[in-house]
Amino acid sequence: MKIATHELRCTECGTRIAGTAVNSIFRCTICNGLYDVIYPWSAIPNGDTPATDSRLPNASALRWLWQERRTSTMSVDQSGVWRFRDLLPIVDDLDHVVTLREGNTPLYDLPRASKALGVDWILAKHQGMNPTGSFKDTGMTAALSVARERGFEWVACASTGNTSAAMAAYAARAGMRSIVFIPEGKIAWGKLSQSMDYGALTIQLKTDFDGCVNVLTDLVNRFPIMLLNSVNPYRLEGQKTPAFELVEQLEWQVPEHVIVPGGNLANGSALAKGFSEMHHLGLIPRIPKVSIIQAEGANPLYRSLQENGGEELIPVKANTRATAIRIGNPASWRKALRALRTTGGWCEQVSEQEIALAKAEIGSEGIGCEPASAVTLAGLKKLVAQGKIGREERVVLILTGHTLKDSTYTIDYHRGELFTDEESTQISGSDQILHAALRKPPIVLDADTDTVFRALESQMKLVHA
Amino acid sequence: MKIATHELRCTECGTRIAGTAVNSIFRCTICNGLYDVIYPWSAIPNGDTPATDSRLPNASALRWLWQERRTSTMSVDQSGVWRFRDLLPIVDDLDHVVTLREGNTPLYDLPRASKALGVDWILAKHQGMNPTGSFKDTGMTAALSVARERGFEWVACASTGNTSAAMAAYAARAGMRSIVFIPEGKIAWGKLSQSMDYGALTIQLKTDFDGCVNVLTDLVNRFPIMLLNSVNPYRLEGQKTPAFELVEQLEWQVPEHVIVPGGNLANGSALAKGFSEMHHLGLIPRIPKVSIIQAEGANPLYRSLQENGGEELIPVKANTRATAIRIGNPASWRKALRALRTTGGWCEQVSEQEIALAKAEIGSEGIGCEPASAVTLAGLKKLVAQGKIGREERVVLILTGHTLKDSTYTIDYHRGELFTDEESTQISGSDQILHAALRKPPIVLDADTDTVFRALESQMKLVHA
Repeated sequence: MKIATHELRCTECGTRIAGTAVNSIFRCTICNGLYDVIYPWSAIPNGDTPATDSRLPNASALRWLWQERRTSTMSVDQSGVWRFRDLLPIVDDLDHVVTLREGNTPLYDLPRASKALGVDWILAKHQGMNPTGSFKDTGMTAALSVARERGFEWVACASTGNTSAAMAAYAARAGMRSIVFIPEGKIAWGKLSQSMDYGALTIQLKTDFDGCVNVLTDLVNRFPIMLLNSVNPYRLEGQKTPAFELVEQLEWQVPEHVIVPGGNLANGSALAKGFSEMHHLGLIPRIPKVSIIQAEGANPLYRSLQENGGEELIPVKANTRATAIRIGNPASWRKALRALRTTGGWCEQVSEQEIALAKAEIGSEGIGCEPASAVTLAGLKKLVAQGKIGREERVVLILTGHTLKDSTYTIDYHRGELFTDEESTQISGSDQILHAALRKPPIVLDADTDTVFRALESQMKLVHA
Repeated sequence: MKIATHELRCTECGTRIAGTAVNSIFRCTICNGLYDVIYPWSAIPNGDTPATDSRLPNASALRWLWQERRTSTMSVDQSGVWRFRDLLPIVDDLDHVVTLREGNTPLYDLPRASKALGVDWILAKHQGMNPTGSFKDTGMTAALSVARERGFEWVACASTGNTSAAMAAYAARAGMRSIVFIPEGKIAWGKLSQSMDYGALTIQLKTDFDGCVNVLTDLVNRFPIMLLNSVNPYRLEGQKTPAFELVEQLEWQVPEHVIVPGGNLANGSALAKGFSEMHHLGLIPRIPKVSIIQAEGANPLYRSLQENGGEELIPVKANTRATAIRIGNPASWRKALRALRTTGGWCEQVSEQEIALAKAEIGSEGIGCEPASAVTLAGLKKLVAQGKIGREERVVLILTGHTLKDSTYTIDYHRGELFTDEESTQISGSDQILHAALRKPPIVLDADTDTVFRALESQMKLVHA
């Protein structure tokens, strides 16, 4: 199925330019807005007419093709992103595709969380099972492929961790050089280790995340370096594909709710774009509500919605142990707002204690995730309590990172060192009981069978009581 | 394709018992040997006759079935282990299968390593891309499914890390309780964090790995707890499936060499069993040479082969930073010896410096792995230098763990803190140049564009020089 090439369309003023017209600064030259990638078959707001070929790709043919590719041994078919390349016509020549066999992530049921919450059907789509351990891989395979096709030798991003790991891996795979800008300090070392492992040049700047972005913007203006921050619209094209994969895994049934963590706010809008495109093409009959959950300490979108209805972003000084969403001034906030409005989803915030508990609950289902991922379950609890999500509705949580991304957090939690005494007093009585049941600090014992035997007996009683 | 059930056969004395006859101590009651799982269609040494039904499963039908299942949305079909269940008839009822969507791991080419070594075709099968980040998942899905089918509520293992993480995750998934015994100290915390995260009860014993095994053996004798150490033959049934997956990914072509890290030594023999079974069933025309690489500081198999031709195991006091293979008295050494002999592979040892360099080289291809995985590339270099592997032969390295399993190692390496001064002097001149090119310590700079610009210019020159 050959489909004509793409354009970029400003999400603010609607200006459209050829896909190849911009490479470094992915902001509208007229109004500084962010771009969307659009295709000849895209539904375009405001009555604009599509560029060349308005014939819609055939839904049944796409479904069949996507399924058939799963039996192929070609790397572009084995990728859970490029398997959907019919709706990603951003690379002309598939030889330029840079892939690590991303995507194809598992969809788990969460039977214990379902029972505890009284919601029949809670699923977790685990994007942390991607090659570098986070959802960013689906975006980076797309953006690095575009960079390679356009002849770039260098790429760069400013990142709190997951983005840099993903960019470094895909750049190395492509034989390209990558530069990672990170704020000095407050870094999950497990994440920084990856960018070094994959051969990136890591520069720690004596500033915060926003300061890194400013320096980076200056640099990509002066060097032939492709910017791979979340403003790069090609990353979002890759990040929309888990929406396709999800409904395919559900045999083309659409869940009522999809819940994502909110940090830089690009992920929710990417998924919403994926669902909207599927709906427009007749692949699904309706669009799920996409809700975004932020940490209380990094809640600019939540605050803006509360205080001015989303008219203006209120940046915050971000502070949360869920490092992947510790972002106070998210670039993609307007896109996220659009996603909430077009899908009918909500924005919520959750506390550090709620995040920790939700992470331990997900872990107890045999599924590890990084702290930021756990905001989805914590947020779901609030939406259920508010009556926004009913018992018989189907909910999919998007887990964004692997548990190994921040093992220090897990260790601190189980050792009882995550919270200060003051923070601990803010945990409700029922949650304290849950915490006590879920915490598993290692026990140190003499290597003597009888000693172990006695300890085990008391533990068994404790557990069965 | 309905195939009759399995038996266990002692690998030492050949005694055969029903599969359900043993549950806790998986050692022959006559000679203390380890068991193999055998099937009615198995090729059995020493002229024994098979149990009931000797009709071989049809090779073409299996190939077709395995491919078709990849398009299914059923969890047993989406598992890269249970997709091959026709050759795993260890669970009668598929409802008992405990799966996290393991397997289906990527097969990467390593173009830079191929070029550097002058070997045309080096591939890496990355078992670290399994759900808990190591190859152990393929074994645990099999063993936990057997445990669930037999009604166990508790499982236990002694583990240096990866095994405990995998067991804890699958036990949690099954709604079972798990106990992890680990030696106190010298633990990669990233691995211990997982068993806590998945809700295991972790007991650190004041002894070494062998001491843990002794206590554990006593315990499973006195409690209804299934032993999940590598002596559990069902784990090896799961661990044989990457052999199937590998040749399927190669469109049923067989590589000349498969190289695995050697720690507890169960993995190489599991893969060799998989290849042998495929050969017996006519799925492949020949068996690849399976070679095993140990760290110099944990080399009992290598030493035994050098000093007594493999007649007796010479246990060692294990010491290597590749924690996943830090095992001095491996339980499965005889099985590993059999794998070397039946496939024609070799056993080699590599130094700490060689491991670190190989890990950085693999990382520079955009593929992270834990240190133990990197012994495969380090060992390949030696086998090539010895003339045992030729330019046109096809080599597959089995990478066993994810880079995030031990991020401290990566950080120490790139900061130049991995080796003592004395260890550093033992690195050859050419390797020192390689180390210098691969090491990427983060640079700390003021958040000023011109400062960054100058640093970057000097780096670019350095790189391009």
